[in-house]
Amino acid sequence: MRKKRFGILTAGGDCPGLNAAIRAIVKTAHQQYDMEAIGFQHGYKGILDRDYSVLTPDKVSGILTVGGTILGTSREKIFKNEPGDERDKPGIIREVYDELGLECLVVLGGNGTNKKAYLLQEAVGINVIGLPKTIDNDIVGTEQCFGFSSAVTIATEAIDRIHTTAHSHNRIMVIELMGHHAGWLALYAGVSGGGDVILLPEIPYDIQCVAKAINKRAQQGKEFSIVVVAEGALSIRESKMEKSKLKQYLSRRPSAGYRVARAIERATGLESRITVLGYVQRGGTPNAWDRILSTKMGSYAAEMLFREEYGRMVALIDGKIDSVDLAIVADKIRYVDEDDRILIAARSIGTCLGVEA
Amino acid sequence: MRKKRFGILTAGGDCPGLNAAIRAIVKTAHQQYDMEAIGFQHGYKGILDRDYSVLTPDKVSGILTVGGTILGTSREKIFKNEPGDERDKPGIIREVYDELGLECLVVLGGNGTNKKAYLLQEAVGINVIGLPKTIDNDIVGTEQCFGFSSAVTIATEAIDRIHTTAHSHNRIMVIELMGHHAGWLALYAGVSGGGDVILLPEIPYDIQCVAKAINKRAQQGKEFSIVVVAEGALSIRESKMEKSKLKQYLSRRPSAGYRVARAIERATGLESRITVLGYVQRGGTPNAWDRILSTKMGSYAAEMLFREEYGRMVALIDGKIDSVDLAIVADKIRYVDEDDRILIAARSIGTCLGVEA
Amino acid sequence: MRKKRFGILTAGGDCPGLNAAIRAIVKTAHQQYDMEAIGFQHGYKGILDRDYSVLTPDKVSGILTVGGTILGTSREKIFKNEPGDERDKPGIIREVYDELGLECLVVLGGNGTNKKAYLLQEAVGINVIGLPKTIDNDIVGTEQCFGFSSAVTIATEAIDRIHTTAHSHNRIMVIELMGHHAGWLALYAGVSGGGDVILLPEIPYDIQCVAKAINKRAQQGKEFSIVVVAEGALSIRESKMEKSKLKQYLSRRPSAGYRVARAIERATGLESRITVLGYVQRGGTPNAWDRILSTKMGSYAAEMLFREEYGRMVALIDGKIDSVDLAIVADKIRYVDEDDRILIAARSIGTCLGVEA
Amino acid sequence: MRKKRFGILTAGGDCPGLNAAIRAIVKTAHQQYDMEAIGFQHGYKGILDRDYSVLTPDKVSGILTVGGTILGTSREKIFKNEPGDERDKPGIIREVYDELGLECLVVLGGNGTNKKAYLLQEAVGINVIGLPKTIDNDIVGTEQCFGFSSAVTIATEAIDRIHTTAHSHNRIMVIELMGHHAGWLALYAGVSGGGDVILLPEIPYDIQCVAKAINKRAQQGKEFSIVVVAEGALSIRESKMEKSKLKQYLSRRPSAGYRVARAIERATGLESRITVLGYVQRGGTPNAWDRILSTKMGSYAAEMLFREEYGRMVALIDGKIDSVDLAIVADKIRYVDEDDRILIAARSIGTCLGVEA
Repeated sequence: MRKKRFGILTAGGDCPGLNAAIRAIVKTAHQQYDMEAIGFQHGYKGILDRDYSVLTPDKVSGILTVGGTILGTSREKIFKNEPGDERDKPGIIREVYDELGLECLVVLGGNGTNKKAYLLQEAVGINVIGLPKTIDNDIVGTEQCFGFSSAVTIATEAIDRIHTTAHSHNRIMVIELMGHHAGWLALYAGVSGGGDVILLPEIPYDIQCVAKAINKRAQQGKEFSIVVVAEGALSIRESKMEKSKLKQYLSRRPSAGYRVARAIERATGLESRITVLGYVQRGGTPNAWDRILSTKMGSYAAEMLFREEYGRMVALIDGKIDSVDLAIVADKIRYVDEDDRILIAARSIGTCLGVEA
Repeated sequence: MRKKRFGILTAGGDCPGLNAAIRAIVKTAHQQYDMEAIGFQHGYKGILDRDYSVLTPDKVSGILTVGGTILGTSREKIFKNEPGDERDKPGIIREVYDELGLECLVVLGGNGTNKKAYLLQEAVGINVIGLPKTIDNDIVGTEQCFGFSSAVTIATEAIDRIHTTAHSHNRIMVIELMGHHAGWLALYAGVSGGGDVILLPEIPYDIQCVAKAINKRAQQGKEFSIVVVAEGALSIRESKMEKSKLKQYLSRRPSAGYRVARAIERATGLESRITVLGYVQRGGTPNAWDRILSTKMGSYAAEMLFREEYGRMVALIDGKIDSVDLAIVADKIRYVDEDDRILIAARSIGTCLGVEA
Repeated sequence: MRKKRFGILTAGGDCPGLNAAIRAIVKTAHQQYDMEAIGFQHGYKGILDRDYSVLTPDKVSGILTVGGTILGTSREKIFKNEPGDERDKPGIIREVYDELGLECLVVLGGNGTNKKAYLLQEAVGINVIGLPKTIDNDIVGTEQCFGFSSAVTIATEAIDRIHTTAHSHNRIMVIELMGHHAGWLALYAGVSGGGDVILLPEIPYDIQCVAKAINKRAQQGKEFSIVVVAEGALSIRESKMEKSKLKQYLSRRPSAGYRVARAIERATGLESRITVLGYVQRGGTPNAWDRILSTKMGSYAAEMLFREEYGRMVALIDGKIDSVDLAIVADKIRYVDEDDRILIAARSIGTCLGVEA
Repeated sequence: MRKKRFGILTAGGDCPGLNAAIRAIVKTAHQQYDMEAIGFQHGYKGILDRDYSVLTPDKVSGILTVGGTILGTSREKIFKNEPGDERDKPGIIREVYDELGLECLVVLGGNGTNKKAYLLQEAVGINVIGLPKTIDNDIVGTEQCFGFSSAVTIATEAIDRIHTTAHSHNRIMVIELMGHHAGWLALYAGVSGGGDVILLPEIPYDIQCVAKAINKRAQQGKEFSIVVVAEGALSIRESKMEKSKLKQYLSRRPSAGYRVARAIERATGLESRITVLGYVQRGGTPNAWDRILSTKMGSYAAEMLFREEYGRMVALIDGKIDSVDLAIVADKIRYVDEDDRILIAARSIGTCLGVEA
């Protein structure tokens, strides 16, 4: 009798912990349940291109500490076609799924990837299981995604470094971190890096309020400040713009960090410098905690395969590994909440969040 | 009218995050609630010696990233006296508490420190609040203690380094980590470092089982193995010894790592090398996640002060910051549990835990 | 009899190792030669403002590992005045020097700072000793400056991280590092980070040559490449522009990394992404090697004070600590040389340096 | 016509930078000179066992950052046989060398490995080139060996961590580092980690002198001290023992760090704690500077192959890559010298080196 078989792919932006999760899924499935994993290359694209191979335990040995994903990734759109492309992509996926005799497709990805998995299940009836990976930590249904812990660590180290220059030069140092929609990364790294001002997409900022916080520090003899800005942060005025107008407005201006630095200089007269951390936040060896979270989640996903708990995403709920219905996950973003403990803590130690508390 | 005043001290072994917690308590208390902090030097000893000073927000500025504790620490016994010392220590503590007009004593420490706080409250009626710090992560009532995250990170980096030597030399590398009673550190670092064998105080090991796991790897062409050992790990035979006999037995032998390495050599004939990581696990800059946990917990402790929630310890419960009655915490140890997800995950990916699964 | 006294200041951009050097100078001067150090705040500005204090050994204790400079820094122009400022700045410096009874002024800085020291000596006859600090490593007369080793380490870690994203996404990742005039940092970090293309200010690049190297890799199945660009790198065409025209041209365009990324996309059709590492390169704890170089150089500077070897800068010559006449150092830049071993090594392992070898 | 062919092996203890050097040799030889590399597995053992394969540029791609050695290593004795083994090992090596049509054997190793290469050349007339790798940095003829820079960095980070515990607990922390014969690692890491006492094999220590330094610090209010000990450090009394007696004496006692900690406790009455860093010092990703040194040295070795400069070891001489006759290298150890600048600097800032200065 043939072994139970499942497919596995990674899609969307890469992040630390993907390989650790792949390893845990494949090893657990093999050793505990005698199932076989088929790895698709470059996300959903690998299904469409029939680009796959069997992932033996041997192939995932030694990848725990390796950044990125051994399966490669892409941002393939499976419900949209380029002009001239007449393929029925969901149909092809169903075809390949059947050809290979898969019982389930396990996808590791962010909001988009998990949403696609959910829609595939609805559209062509295949079984899916999702795992939440993103340094943005903005997937609904889980308290943490893997990749986030490493990104916070990397961003914190960068803020630590910038601190000494701010101090030595008596300057305002602005550091822009990733986070278009949700400000988790800026908030966590801002708190752990000791940022004096933290600006998030969720809380449109009043530059006068920021200036006041910076000036207050200067009056206390601290003539430098660290300002942590999520790339999606907007001023109150910007946030009130009509959507298409805002898009146009932003396209003609440099990124959030630059806009904030310029505005601070105008409002305080103090010299400001900007750092955009960029892709460094997303790459490299996963830290210990992402390896652990990925290993727990990957091992749990294999259990779900065994128990045939389909249509769900592995999740951290009340601090424990569990799962959540993909219907709840799809098409939503988890935002920083006013009563999140980290936000309360940031405020209570005197961090400026861009508006009067 | 005088400000509300509280005392603060750190006791037991130092660990990363103490200063971050002190900073969050003092800043929040000052800024949110206009309370004043009195810092005692070197733990409970500082109360007995009347060695203290006011902790202004300025004094805790810039300490977020600094390892150790600015208050110093000691292992002062407050319910026991050396011969010739006739002091009524709890009485003196009550005296100083009253002299300074304290409303509460906030203690940052491990099992011993929190137990002493509880006993003081019972014995002399002072108000206390505890915070859980220990790299052992073995305090009952909280899912995580600060210091643990940094220790896991440090130990993981050490295992990563040892991996390459094991591989290049085809050797068994044994690494001994801290953890006399509970194996959390060895278990977490073992999983994140990809340890092939992990031996904990909670699970007495069968050396034949360990040898089998190592030999199985050798048969698969992996002629090296990483063995992670908590310092309190015992073989099945050792664990069955009568307590005083065991103590004598252990006193005549080197530490757990050495005993395991020797036993592996005898059982497999393979060359084994030992590393005892030691104090490196406990010192230095807290990692991002300990800074965050400490800041959340410290800020919460200040809220408890304001709400006069005494006799409790700040805790992580169901992934959220909360508090727990010190009566529940005192005099117990939180052990690794058979159905802990990390243990299940370790087993499911094929890690040997010293006995047949 | 009064102790022999000298002044000390740090000027220009801050960098790792400044505090380690200050510590070594002050400790050696005090302990070996019983001399007293006067520390000026914020570079030359501290002399003009009479902002100084005695640096006792105690004040420099514990600063070895601290980034930035405890003396602060500035870019004060001492041979130029703002409109309305009629001060004779060199005259004031001479005045303060005499008032304080200094025997020498020790300056820690880059090209500009050491040049000013030389000109001060020529203009007002004070004794000076220079120490070479800059992450650009471009001071003439020394084989290495402190700060450089840390910057190479930081930049290498960033490249390591970016590598995994490049690999997972099959993308061209461009990383822009500091270095306006000299490309040492980009070259060293490029080699240690395994950059496939390295573009330096000293070697104007031919984008077709870069594209060829990238395409060749793609043909070998490596569909990603890492391109390391110094911020002062120019294309051949740009490098031939008349100076004022080039300035205008550059002012209307984003930085070197962006220009290179755009040009690569046009020439290869491959998706390119850019990271500008920025101030992270310059801050934070000095690495072990900058601490060592700073300690050696600082201790040597104190010996020079004792031997009254004035008008010279501490330097690394033939791998040994020595000194060089400031007349040789002033007003020059040390460029990457065609027969530098690191350049030869980079070429010989197949790294593209922007032009046909 | 067949390509020019050479053999390559790594022997002795592994260390960071071996793979970077292998990569540079193979890539340069292939791309610049069209030569072919044969890699032997596990050092000289791989020649005796005819365990080898062609090292194509592809096989060394991506190994720059990988710790250990892809060729494996061993401590095979080629001029000595176990009882019952009658093989003429040098003869076999000559045989394999001829069979494969090698023009030269390139060995990467420490004192022993380079000595064996020299003796092989003398004994059976094969051509050899050596490269100096060792974290001990004790090979005669070169100012630096690769592996050393990473080891100093790792040991420095450990000392940094231990510092905070020493400070928080007012304790003497003793850290034992590798270095049986030469104390380079302890000396460099001791200086960069800010060790208060540094004990080397080259300078037998007087424990009264050490105690005096520690007590002096305590009088200045610094009730903690960091003591860095090379594993080969001896007290004056121990160093005067007759060799065989010393061996016996040491075999009955724990390592140098333990002996020093015990002696300090006896002499000062202060609580001392010991850390033995062990194998962590030798493994893991090479730091930026070892990657650079290995790349320079590897590329230079390939040039030497081309120029047929045999019988020599690549070396750093006067800060530049060069080579030295293996006859000079063989059978010697490079010790820390009294007039080495790092030793002078350590003394001049007040570090105790175990004897009165």
